[in-house]
Amino acid sequence: MDLKATIREIPDFPKKGIIFYDLTTLFKNPVAYQQSMAELLEHYRGLDFNYIVGIEARGFIIGAPLAIALNKGFIPIRKPGKLPAEIISASYDLEYGSNSIEIHQDAIKPGDKILLVDDLLATGGTIKAAIDLIEGLGGELVSIGFLLELEFLNGRKDLEEYNIFSLLKEKG
Amino acid sequence: MDLKATIREIPDFPKKGIIFYDLTTLFKNPVAYQQSMAELLEHYRGLDFNYIVGIEARGFIIGAPLAIALNKGFIPIRKPGKLPAEIISASYDLEYGSNSIEIHQDAIKPGDKILLVDDLLATGGTIKAAIDLIEGLGGELVSIGFLLELEFLNGRKDLEEYNIFSLLKEKG
Repeated sequence: MDLKATIREIPDFPKKGIIFYDLTTLFKNPVAYQQSMAELLEHYRGLDFNYIVGIEARGFIIGAPLAIALNKGFIPIRKPGKLPAEIISASYDLEYGSNSIEIHQDAIKPGDKILLVDDLLATGGTIKAAIDLIEGLGGELVSIGFLLELEFLNGRKDLEEYNIFSLLKEKG
Repeated sequence: MDLKATIREIPDFPKKGIIFYDLTTLFKNPVAYQQSMAELLEHYRGLDFNYIVGIEARGFIIGAPLAIALNKGFIPIRKPGKLPAEIISASYDLEYGSNSIEIHQDAIKPGDKILLVDDLLATGGTIKAAIDLIEGLGGELVSIGFLLELEFLNGRKDLEEYNIFSLLKEKG
């Protein structure tokens, strides 16, 4: 089926002038969700890696089923204050101010091979912070997978050294 | 394997005197995570329902793989301000103040049969708010599944009319 047709475009969210690509309509559609995960699985089956890292919260909806299908452990990157043990933190800029994300310090050890996943590649700010966390712990990033890439935001421009796969692409 | 042995207990998080049951160590262990999902799947295979609803964020780590394994759509309940279309909201009390959670108004239609999942049943405040959202949209709650139930917090006491399944139980 046409997966992109199941994504809902919401104008002016979270602010005026932005079109928000709402994936909840894809996840709710069992055929579309199943097919998305099957195609990601097809791409990543056979990849040599140790853990899937997913970014809170929508990255969990992609990363968790992929971890189960590939028989790997799942490691969450979370918003501040959510992880209970020792953490490291990385910041990224927003239009106004900044946000940060965290990972458990003992979640990754040097040399662990990581497949990082998130739902959407937009400007790439969150992903760059996630890479900082993974590499800060000595992890080796073998690939980064997205369900949807907004190509017109050019988020790949600072990610050229990485192996990136986007299942769907939106030219805008 | 002994799943409970893979859960890390963190004293004094999020505040002094509370023991936090950290499931990230279970999710990171591929054998434990796989076995958890297989046992939940075993319990729910054959259940007649339409959608899995998961509560942000750790509920996604349980609910998303279960939705894929059972070939169902996945519907997220999220923290305020995250869902882009029309929402309804429900509040629940915390020790100081209150929080709220949201669901898309068009996510569930009257008569839809729902399996609600979350990682942990503690006092049950979040789950009751989630039930309010689902029933507020006319959904029929066929079961509520947890990975871990903290029995000593007696979260079941206000949920007697529902079909509840907890894979693991902690007596405290």
